[in-house]
Amino acid sequence: METLLRRCRVQNQLLRECMAECLGVYVMILFGCGSVAQVVTTGERKGQYLSINLGFALGTSFGVFVSRGVSGAHLNPAVSLSLCVLGRHPWTKFPFYLVSQVLGAFLAAATVSLQYHEAIRSFGGGELQVTGATATAGIFATYPADYLSLWGGVADQVIGTAALLVCVLALGDSRNSPAPAGLEPVLVGAAVLVIGVSMGSNSGYAINPARDIGPRLFTYFTGWGVEVFQAGGGWWWVPLVATFVGALLGTLIYELFIEVHHPDSPAELRAARGQGVPAGRTKKDLELEGVEPVQA
Amino acid sequence: METLLRRCRVQNQLLRECMAECLGVYVMILFGCGSVAQVVTTGERKGQYLSINLGFALGTSFGVFVSRGVSGAHLNPAVSLSLCVLGRHPWTKFPFYLVSQVLGAFLAAATVSLQYHEAIRSFGGGELQVTGATATAGIFATYPADYLSLWGGVADQVIGTAALLVCVLALGDSRNSPAPAGLEPVLVGAAVLVIGVSMGSNSGYAINPARDIGPRLFTYFTGWGVEVFQAGGGWWWVPLVATFVGALLGTLIYELFIEVHHPDSPAELRAARGQGVPAGRTKKDLELEGVEPVQA
Amino acid sequence: METLLRRCRVQNQLLRECMAECLGVYVMILFGCGSVAQVVTTGERKGQYLSINLGFALGTSFGVFVSRGVSGAHLNPAVSLSLCVLGRHPWTKFPFYLVSQVLGAFLAAATVSLQYHEAIRSFGGGELQVTGATATAGIFATYPADYLSLWGGVADQVIGTAALLVCVLALGDSRNSPAPAGLEPVLVGAAVLVIGVSMGSNSGYAINPARDIGPRLFTYFTGWGVEVFQAGGGWWWVPLVATFVGALLGTLIYELFIEVHHPDSPAELRAARGQGVPAGRTKKDLELEGVEPVQA
Amino acid sequence: METLLRRCRVQNQLLRECMAECLGVYVMILFGCGSVAQVVTTGERKGQYLSINLGFALGTSFGVFVSRGVSGAHLNPAVSLSLCVLGRHPWTKFPFYLVSQVLGAFLAAATVSLQYHEAIRSFGGGELQVTGATATAGIFATYPADYLSLWGGVADQVIGTAALLVCVLALGDSRNSPAPAGLEPVLVGAAVLVIGVSMGSNSGYAINPARDIGPRLFTYFTGWGVEVFQAGGGWWWVPLVATFVGALLGTLIYELFIEVHHPDSPAELRAARGQGVPAGRTKKDLELEGVEPVQA
Repeated sequence: METLLRRCRVQNQLLRECMAECLGVYVMILFGCGSVAQVVTTGERKGQYLSINLGFALGTSFGVFVSRGVSGAHLNPAVSLSLCVLGRHPWTKFPFYLVSQVLGAFLAAATVSLQYHEAIRSFGGGELQVTGATATAGIFATYPADYLSLWGGVADQVIGTAALLVCVLALGDSRNSPAPAGLEPVLVGAAVLVIGVSMGSNSGYAINPARDIGPRLFTYFTGWGVEVFQAGGGWWWVPLVATFVGALLGTLIYELFIEVHHPDSPAELRAARGQGVPAGRTKKDLELEGVEPVQA
Repeated sequence: METLLRRCRVQNQLLRECMAECLGVYVMILFGCGSVAQVVTTGERKGQYLSINLGFALGTSFGVFVSRGVSGAHLNPAVSLSLCVLGRHPWTKFPFYLVSQVLGAFLAAATVSLQYHEAIRSFGGGELQVTGATATAGIFATYPADYLSLWGGVADQVIGTAALLVCVLALGDSRNSPAPAGLEPVLVGAAVLVIGVSMGSNSGYAINPARDIGPRLFTYFTGWGVEVFQAGGGWWWVPLVATFVGALLGTLIYELFIEVHHPDSPAELRAARGQGVPAGRTKKDLELEGVEPVQA
Repeated sequence: METLLRRCRVQNQLLRECMAECLGVYVMILFGCGSVAQVVTTGERKGQYLSINLGFALGTSFGVFVSRGVSGAHLNPAVSLSLCVLGRHPWTKFPFYLVSQVLGAFLAAATVSLQYHEAIRSFGGGELQVTGATATAGIFATYPADYLSLWGGVADQVIGTAALLVCVLALGDSRNSPAPAGLEPVLVGAAVLVIGVSMGSNSGYAINPARDIGPRLFTYFTGWGVEVFQAGGGWWWVPLVATFVGALLGTLIYELFIEVHHPDSPAELRAARGQGVPAGRTKKDLELEGVEPVQA
Repeated sequence: METLLRRCRVQNQLLRECMAECLGVYVMILFGCGSVAQVVTTGERKGQYLSINLGFALGTSFGVFVSRGVSGAHLNPAVSLSLCVLGRHPWTKFPFYLVSQVLGAFLAAATVSLQYHEAIRSFGGGELQVTGATATAGIFATYPADYLSLWGGVADQVIGTAALLVCVLALGDSRNSPAPAGLEPVLVGAAVLVIGVSMGSNSGYAINPARDIGPRLFTYFTGWGVEVFQAGGGWWWVPLVATFVGALLGTLIYELFIEVHHPDSPAELRAARGQGVPAGRTKKDLELEGVEPVQA
């Protein structure tokens, strides 16, 4: 078997990265949209809003576990864009990542649709509705709350995606207080969890253009029709545009408040850190750890 | 006391592994089915669907903690099969693992039945029902939702078990982004959690033939009768067969999208990793960590 | 200030351990019983059964964080007894630990009573009831469900405490798959969480004699009266006796299924481990980690 | 881009720390108050009390991740005060930290107000109420339950903040059982979580003067008016004063029960630790780890 699999080996680095991004987003959306399907089609009897939050959070964690060692686990075109702007990812790869991410989300939506095919038919009485009490389009893409204007939605998605980037950049900033090695996937998932419990009710926290447009296209092609682009006053473009703006804003905030001010040399860094002794450490603790205490 | 215990020492490696698999599955099902018993017999007053998800997730974690150092903690015949097919586990051990796993699940069901004996009698009005409002057979084995056809159930279990394998293989893939040493049990539990919140409502996410047939046999022998094999249109064989298919499918997906393409030598691996800089790392971060940055 | 505090320094090792056990149990019960008080006095509007499970679980975690480096964080006379029987803790310390643990639980109950004094008065209409719709004694000690007989309760507490010990012994077994250094407190809390979601509805998962008798004595002395010993058909002795029996049973199970069979020498241990390759590891993974693969 | 950002570099250490404290509290309150906004404005349909607990807990975790490497992540004037009293933080920095923390909370309240502007208008019917069924002031600052007297509230906040400090000091005490390196942010968040599930119902667990007064000032200035200071019998000063008292009390408790008694030299520390063998470790385990066992 292992010999057989070896025959399928791909050596092209970019193709490997695209496959990893695709499978990573696939896993994320399979679990994320799956949890919405479970809650919606059971009328909240087998899960509530919190289990949707958990579905996207842990879905993100496992999406990152699946792809991080190969592609860096962007899983989000808005994240890829920010990294390109910061010069930490090559612009030439951006379109390839983007397409892979959207494709992964599309395929995941198709799988959720297959797994919940009978549940969706049963819940919707055989109809595929976009709005109303038996709507099922919201299993796949995001739709705004009744009260939300398009500009309110733009603000919502800009703030949400900015919050995501501030968290992700902090988790990876080795001169601050980074995520412990190997736990990055869990903590990126935790960022998605807290965004879900605190910024989810306005419009379903897309905070990722691929997560939204991939499944929306799937519903467009498979029976929900053109209304998926018309609902919410033409909502569909908001998660596509506002998330990119928010990602750049969040990047700017983290850079300007924290990262650009870090000392460059390890020695300066250690000295500066001595100034801000973490809460709860005594001088004795620091001595035992070999850190020089400072005079208060 | 310690001297006394030493007398019982078993040196046969296979027997040790079988005992570990048996106790591991026992712990997993004791907590898992126990949480269903708690939710069902209290009419959701002491827990809801999410606490069942937590019961199976943490039950799996502790099942792994109990057995991983001895048997590798398969705890699932579908996992054992996949590892045999991949050449990572000897075929000769497969039947021994299988029997130990089913036995552990059977014994756990017996313990849950003992612990919740009075609760089950009280909730069911003295009757042991398989279906209906006071059904208690679902505490032990899985049954499909009303709307689910057998083929819909097969799809559900194939997808669910495939998702499990993709997650488990990613967590153990040291050339990707593996689980931190010692935290594998927790993260395997997290995979079970996310499957529970996103793929649980169709048929109760068996995703493990031993988890289903062991407790089902227990209910067959102890009063629920032959209906446990007849309910859901003869549902019982689906978790037995579809889970094996799903495990192989998930293995194939992870291998073909990710694992077979990893470079073999550590040097190549490092070079390839430099290409996909994890989100949020600056060149400066990588320098401080001693990783060579790449040109964007 | 630091100089002032130094004056209060105690050098006696046993007294230090007793203070640590006392504060550890205090923290555990303060959070645990506090979460029950919150759920009961708000009529489940500010938390549900799951938040009680979290209260005891995280309460246990922080109780362990507070005391582990000093006393080993038993926090439970049934755990202390098991360790004494196994020869891992001196019998002479047992009574001192026991008294400290009960005292910590008593003081925590007093603090919860102070913090929720007005809430309890308001919820109970000024009465301190042990049973009925406005009962508040259950905030402090455990009481059985209506359907539970005393022998059913004994089985419940024996099984629950045995499950606790199996988990705790596995987490500390360095020749199996132990908890990562520093995370033991979190994982012991996770064991309490899973017991709470799967074994909580029969009688409130005391699984710890000090946790139950300390707060029960507090309610006896401060207004709930002698009924706290009469309710549930004289339930009070069950968590005192059955937990000790369960702890010994769980210890026996883990020893006989797993621990006594571990090879003694590190070399043998490594060899045996090679046999049971953890799920998801390829030979290639093991090579990269420097572990010798085995022939399947 | 990176060059451009470099131009904005600040080298002043105190200013860097103030920016970190400000952004840290901002992140904490953005997620915390955001989760209250989500639960309140959806009438608990998109989250319940537990999701508020998660919002503040994970908000705190990410607030710590964002600031810990620069300022030590106090994020709470009561924590800063305790550290100053213990001589672990310079008094001269205290007012700067205090102002930064309050400012961060104020700005976060403004952002939550922007993100939930239409939701708040819709829920309140266009009115900004402080009390009653459509009150929205509680999204931002804390208000006491109906039954709570001011002195009851003082006790509540003293106990809650004391519990926070005991946990935080234990997590940082390297001679006890400290949080694993890199996981401090998660565990501080866990402390906030357990306080939320066990001490939240009386008055909303402010346990942080900046968390309360910053958002309260924001509501005062932007339409809720002077009633935010009058409601609850003039509640506003309780979270300001009682939290400082509680922080000092908690510090005193942890110091007197645990920390001052630690041996000074590493050798003594090791010897003392041998006495209190952690639950579940055999002599064999300790041997394998190179720790000398003691005679029972």
